[in-house]
Amino acid sequence: MSQTPGSLMAAEIAEQPEVWRRIVDDGLPAIDEVARRVAQRGPRFVLFVARGSSDHAALYGKYLAEIDLGLPAGMMSPSSMTVYSARPDFRDVLVVAVSQSGGSPDLVQTVRVAREQGALTVALTNQADSPLASEAELHLDILAGPERSVAATKSYTAQLLVLHLLLTRWNGASVESGDRLERLGRQVLDQLGPVVETAQRYRFAARMVTTGRGFAYPSAREAALKLMETSYLSAQAFSGADLLHGPLAMVDPQVPVLALVPHGRAGSAMAEVLPRLAERGADVLGIGSSEAISSCTAGFALPAEVDERLSPLLEILPVQQLALHLAVARGGDPDTPRGLSKVTETL
Amino acid sequence: MSQTPGSLMAAEIAEQPEVWRRIVDDGLPAIDEVARRVAQRGPRFVLFVARGSSDHAALYGKYLAEIDLGLPAGMMSPSSMTVYSARPDFRDVLVVAVSQSGGSPDLVQTVRVAREQGALTVALTNQADSPLASEAELHLDILAGPERSVAATKSYTAQLLVLHLLLTRWNGASVESGDRLERLGRQVLDQLGPVVETAQRYRFAARMVTTGRGFAYPSAREAALKLMETSYLSAQAFSGADLLHGPLAMVDPQVPVLALVPHGRAGSAMAEVLPRLAERGADVLGIGSSEAISSCTAGFALPAEVDERLSPLLEILPVQQLALHLAVARGGDPDTPRGLSKVTETL
Repeated sequence: MSQTPGSLMAAEIAEQPEVWRRIVDDGLPAIDEVARRVAQRGPRFVLFVARGSSDHAALYGKYLAEIDLGLPAGMMSPSSMTVYSARPDFRDVLVVAVSQSGGSPDLVQTVRVAREQGALTVALTNQADSPLASEAELHLDILAGPERSVAATKSYTAQLLVLHLLLTRWNGASVESGDRLERLGRQVLDQLGPVVETAQRYRFAARMVTTGRGFAYPSAREAALKLMETSYLSAQAFSGADLLHGPLAMVDPQVPVLALVPHGRAGSAMAEVLPRLAERGADVLGIGSSEAISSCTAGFALPAEVDERLSPLLEILPVQQLALHLAVARGGDPDTPRGLSKVTETL
Repeated sequence: MSQTPGSLMAAEIAEQPEVWRRIVDDGLPAIDEVARRVAQRGPRFVLFVARGSSDHAALYGKYLAEIDLGLPAGMMSPSSMTVYSARPDFRDVLVVAVSQSGGSPDLVQTVRVAREQGALTVALTNQADSPLASEAELHLDILAGPERSVAATKSYTAQLLVLHLLLTRWNGASVESGDRLERLGRQVLDQLGPVVETAQRYRFAARMVTTGRGFAYPSAREAALKLMETSYLSAQAFSGADLLHGPLAMVDPQVPVLALVPHGRAGSAMAEVLPRLAERGADVLGIGSSEAISSCTAGFALPAEVDERLSPLLEILPVQQLALHLAVARGGDPDTPRGLSKVTETL
């Protein structure tokens, strides 16, 4: 139990730029080796398996696989293997399991089945000696260091970055320097003072909608989960496109919206969504390009000179701070949310 | 615009048993022909693409592909193709597009790209002369007849049934008779009188959580969407396993839960979830086996003698009625929810 509510989460949020630098500076040789072995096997299909925040990092990986590697990709449903004992033919499939603890029994069992059925299996965990790391053929430590707050923050962006580096090196492309990533992270964090005040606006909100597209859709999903688990808001994430298929009906001025509108195509693709939200009188907090957030009720601007594949690392920082300060403003402790523990055991 | 609020939706809910009979009695030859051509090509991976309610039917198809056909399967992210111009290698992939109208430009474009890149493409639509039906190599009419309420009901269960029949016949297995399906549907609908009263309990609810696992997880997703779009509730769906990874924190006695606990493994797998909900003092409406619902606050029992693959057709009926009566109780018209139109055009 932490002494000041949220002190663990605050410290872990602040650590992220340093974690990113460590991953690039120290982690790249191991990532290169896994990338080489994956490329050698030449999988034709990529499946990701994860739960909670890790599932959102995995979804980001799915976009990278489809867009940058031209490989059909999907998310696995562990229950097919664990509840229904499905034994699919996984030859030519790369299965990537993502988990902070590496301790979820259903992920371990899913990776075991996938490996038995011919998949090349890679586990990304923050605990190198975890059951998931042992079960998979290949393992990558995400090097975030011990994460003690129940609300995942640094492990989430570490997962994003390791996935990015793995898929980029597999593709033979060059990567951003650790130095620059650390600097960008600090730059965003340094400008987040006003979040404390922004959080007060949502003090009595019962629900929230989060939205984004493309590489920013996983950020919208992670934002909703972070707000739910720390602040007990009923927060729902929709891809910008799905929002227009039904859920838009429940948006009105009483339901605040958090929109991810980063630089690049993910943000441009939201151009058809923002006016529809405005029509419904929605209160929209934008996180992204100065241009896009100028049409929102309020916003946090992100640096322009970032490849949109790396924007998810940055755009989640204001969200994490918002979740932290909102939880504290509501009298909660985001380090130990009610009803949750750090490792979730489901089968 | 309908005269009595919800009269279109009510009529279309009531039509479903007849639609199911029609699909089996009249639709099977076309389904068999498509199944034969799919089997001939022998795809190794299956990807589904859809939006809104159709996306939930597609997710059900994904479970069937993994569990009954032993094929790795996933859901496509249209934005990879439409926003980022990804051109994945789709050889040996079956792409199944599901859409009531067949008019969504992003689905049409995704199917076009998939076909150009080597996929075998199948479209399931309720409009045989739709752009999506023309774009795909193979087409199946789901035979639901014109659906006029904006809230999809009969088209949803028709999609489930056509997917079930397609994958079952592809697998060479035998299917349920149209007669029996119609009878089961009528039996469930005939017992739904009390839903009118149940709906009153949620008159002032601002949010709701829906949950299910395995074949019942798509039902939980569809339940959340149906409640959101008709009654403007903030309804969130979680797989029973994911619920324990974070979102459980926001469940308290003020957040009603709708739990799908059908007969079979989908219901049994919820056995670890119900006690955790009870610990948090949750108010749980169960839909499923008499045994499971006996531990819930209230419930609707489903007939026991149904294969759990067909249970999704039945378990959504009480949900549709609940959404209808709740919308009406709240002074809305589920046939024409605010902010929505029947065909959603996103790119």
